[in-house]
Amino acid sequence: MTEDLSNIHMSKAEFQEYGYRLVDWLAEYFDNVDQYQVLPSIEPGDIRKMLPVSAPEGAESMDEIIADLDRVVMPGVAHWQHPGWYAFFPSGASPVSALGEFVAAGLATQGMMWSTAPAATEIENTVLDWLVDLLGLPPSWRLDEGPGGGVIQMSASDSTHLSLAVARHQFELTGVDANSLVAYGSSQAHSSIEKGARVAGFKHIRSVPVTETFGIDADAFAKIVRDDIDSGLIPAWVCSAVGTTNTTAMDPIRAIAAIASENGMWHHADAAYAGSAMICPEFRELQDGVELVDSYTFNPHKWLLTNFDCSVFWVADRSKLIDTLSILPPYLRNETEDNPAAIDYRDWHVPLGRRFRALKLWFVLRSYGAENLRTFIRSHVTWAEELESKVINDSRLELAAPRTLALVCFRHTDGNDATRKLADAINASGSAYVTPSVTDDVAYIRVSIGSTWTEQRHVEDLWNLIDSNAGLK
Amino acid sequence: MTEDLSNIHMSKAEFQEYGYRLVDWLAEYFDNVDQYQVLPSIEPGDIRKMLPVSAPEGAESMDEIIADLDRVVMPGVAHWQHPGWYAFFPSGASPVSALGEFVAAGLATQGMMWSTAPAATEIENTVLDWLVDLLGLPPSWRLDEGPGGGVIQMSASDSTHLSLAVARHQFELTGVDANSLVAYGSSQAHSSIEKGARVAGFKHIRSVPVTETFGIDADAFAKIVRDDIDSGLIPAWVCSAVGTTNTTAMDPIRAIAAIASENGMWHHADAAYAGSAMICPEFRELQDGVELVDSYTFNPHKWLLTNFDCSVFWVADRSKLIDTLSILPPYLRNETEDNPAAIDYRDWHVPLGRRFRALKLWFVLRSYGAENLRTFIRSHVTWAEELESKVINDSRLELAAPRTLALVCFRHTDGNDATRKLADAINASGSAYVTPSVTDDVAYIRVSIGSTWTEQRHVEDLWNLIDSNAGLK
Repeated sequence: MTEDLSNIHMSKAEFQEYGYRLVDWLAEYFDNVDQYQVLPSIEPGDIRKMLPVSAPEGAESMDEIIADLDRVVMPGVAHWQHPGWYAFFPSGASPVSALGEFVAAGLATQGMMWSTAPAATEIENTVLDWLVDLLGLPPSWRLDEGPGGGVIQMSASDSTHLSLAVARHQFELTGVDANSLVAYGSSQAHSSIEKGARVAGFKHIRSVPVTETFGIDADAFAKIVRDDIDSGLIPAWVCSAVGTTNTTAMDPIRAIAAIASENGMWHHADAAYAGSAMICPEFRELQDGVELVDSYTFNPHKWLLTNFDCSVFWVADRSKLIDTLSILPPYLRNETEDNPAAIDYRDWHVPLGRRFRALKLWFVLRSYGAENLRTFIRSHVTWAEELESKVINDSRLELAAPRTLALVCFRHTDGNDATRKLADAINASGSAYVTPSVTDDVAYIRVSIGSTWTEQRHVEDLWNLIDSNAGLK
Repeated sequence: MTEDLSNIHMSKAEFQEYGYRLVDWLAEYFDNVDQYQVLPSIEPGDIRKMLPVSAPEGAESMDEIIADLDRVVMPGVAHWQHPGWYAFFPSGASPVSALGEFVAAGLATQGMMWSTAPAATEIENTVLDWLVDLLGLPPSWRLDEGPGGGVIQMSASDSTHLSLAVARHQFELTGVDANSLVAYGSSQAHSSIEKGARVAGFKHIRSVPVTETFGIDADAFAKIVRDDIDSGLIPAWVCSAVGTTNTTAMDPIRAIAAIASENGMWHHADAAYAGSAMICPEFRELQDGVELVDSYTFNPHKWLLTNFDCSVFWVADRSKLIDTLSILPPYLRNETEDNPAAIDYRDWHVPLGRRFRALKLWFVLRSYGAENLRTFIRSHVTWAEELESKVINDSRLELAAPRTLALVCFRHTDGNDATRKLADAINASGSAYVTPSVTDDVAYIRVSIGSTWTEQRHVEDLWNLIDSNAGLK
């Protein structure tokens, strides 16, 4: 013990010195990220081998620690920020977003209730309302217009899980047996549906057939729902994908909404990736009917330059969310709890605590401005169109699915082996990384254009890689 | 659209300029945080009123944005980093932790699988194994010794929810009806148990009576379990609090473990706050029997200088966690999935994506070193002892509960009104913030000593505030 702890902390001067050093370090990283191999060349355990078995007893210097960023960390980084990152979906991040995260980490204010973090709460309220308008979502989802509202979650998986838990709770309040509830998602749906439904205690999870463009077949959905009802089950929840992970296929929201509404189901829309594109009005027809859903999620941390975690979740009626998650007994209810000016976000997600994630989103939306953000999205879609057209015009290749936004799915016409070899060749280059995938035993290559530092020339380089590795024309 | 997006991003020089500015801004904040009122003087809506209704169309300058930190944000910050913050539990943070978060935000690597973030995964593996030893937990919880293992979650609420979901799934695998499962926690337990159990679909949640020191009454627990079994229910999950939120009361882990084990229940230990103290061997007797639990959580973001979010969750047998959360169908299982050198953390929590939270924890453990961290904890406990002894020796005051670590709970001997008035007077000072609380209709004041910048003199100032506002001796 000691009477004065100040000696154990970094001094003001040290914080400034090492803070500047790390600003410079990240500035260099952003500037040179294209010089790295996209994926590291290491084996499991290689990083760990460089680290001691136990924590240090004595303090280590920041010089040693920062040196280990280059010695230990960098050899094991998969460079999601590389301009040649076309795998999965992008991990949206930007210099200004990192600055916002930094300030939030320093303030370390804890947003469980309005009273414990008024600024964090109201800035989150505000920027999520901004996004309602930016994305062309129903005005009633704005907290200040109600009855809906938005909240930042960690990931779209959390949002999906939460919507399932809320749906289950709503049905249980009517006295039905949770064992009878059924959740529905497309056969192309993200694994988060099966995981979320399992965690939320759903016994019945249906995989709904899709049409040839990989969106849900609404007639097939209607039939499965009828069959389940005939079997004594209760259709409770359905997810419309606004862009599947596999191919960015769009489920027919309006048709699904009609069936969901007729049967009193909770209708969740998962626009994890594609939601960011809705800041451009020309893409909104892809989510025609969105005003009919009960909840909607999209991830600025995918395609809107805001580093993970930042997943936005809206509900059309916030009272159902709060009813499920509030743990206040009736005698503790207070008069401001329904006041949209004093939101207690603890009742909007599974955790209690929360950090000031809205700060980086506020920084991003202001620093770029809506016009630049639209330019960012539109550029990627245009470059994807150009890549798509090269694929279409090349007899060695063919599209594996229709392109809707900036994800191009294609395969080699010589079949699965040739497709896999082509993907391997691209990835072995070290300058680009694509995801090899498979649907119904047909292999294909996913090229997702959307990383922060990707330029048109990088996509042209990718095409050259494809062209030179696809074999003789 | 454009052929060159580089113009829309912050340039390298701008990032450095504004990065330095924000380093300086935070340096000033850390240095001057004691100059602020702990809580802001604002009404709901005041912050929002300063913000525009819509997002800006054009880019705003960083000068404007940074100016708004002072104009808009600071008037609405509850200063969890203030040395006079004695409310709730501390929001652990430190200069070095903020630097770690900053670097992680810049790298924006996505840790869902080993292959998408090898360094982030292996550094998380390593520092969580370090913590097993630092806290004196069972060596078999180390990933490299197995069969247990640790993972960073967002919050202890997430950990509690997850352990409930795993317990439920394990019972369902044996064919039992989830509607019959019962979860148990003390009547003093954190609201996260009721919330987590509801979200995880438990129909039966029992509040177990406590002894006069507010720990679970093991005999009462055994009786409730027997009664539930007699009623045809299935005891499935119990939480031992290693430090309740109300008073840091300790549940008797060893006695609870015997009952849990006899009945095949999942036994979770919630050491959200108190876990950090276990780096000091002299406090470990408080969690005697911890080697018998199935899962354990503690929050470095409370009392170990690592900013939110950083909650560590260990399971004694990681296969049960992974079985519940893995969504891989059997034909996709791969040969490295049981290799502790290539953990896929997506199967260790509800979300899929995850950020590089281990980096800041690694920075903190190295920059402070274990010795300084122990000094940090021991100093707070010593200062709490000193405050406790002043309370005991003052005829106007009395302890409301035994002190176990650095939380002192006391009340005014004149009763609830006098206690509440005293709390209000302390909080009205603007230099200290305590939590007024109530248990069984008895009001008391919680003083939680543990903020990063709190020194002995601040606790003495707090005592002077108490002394001068408690009325005549």
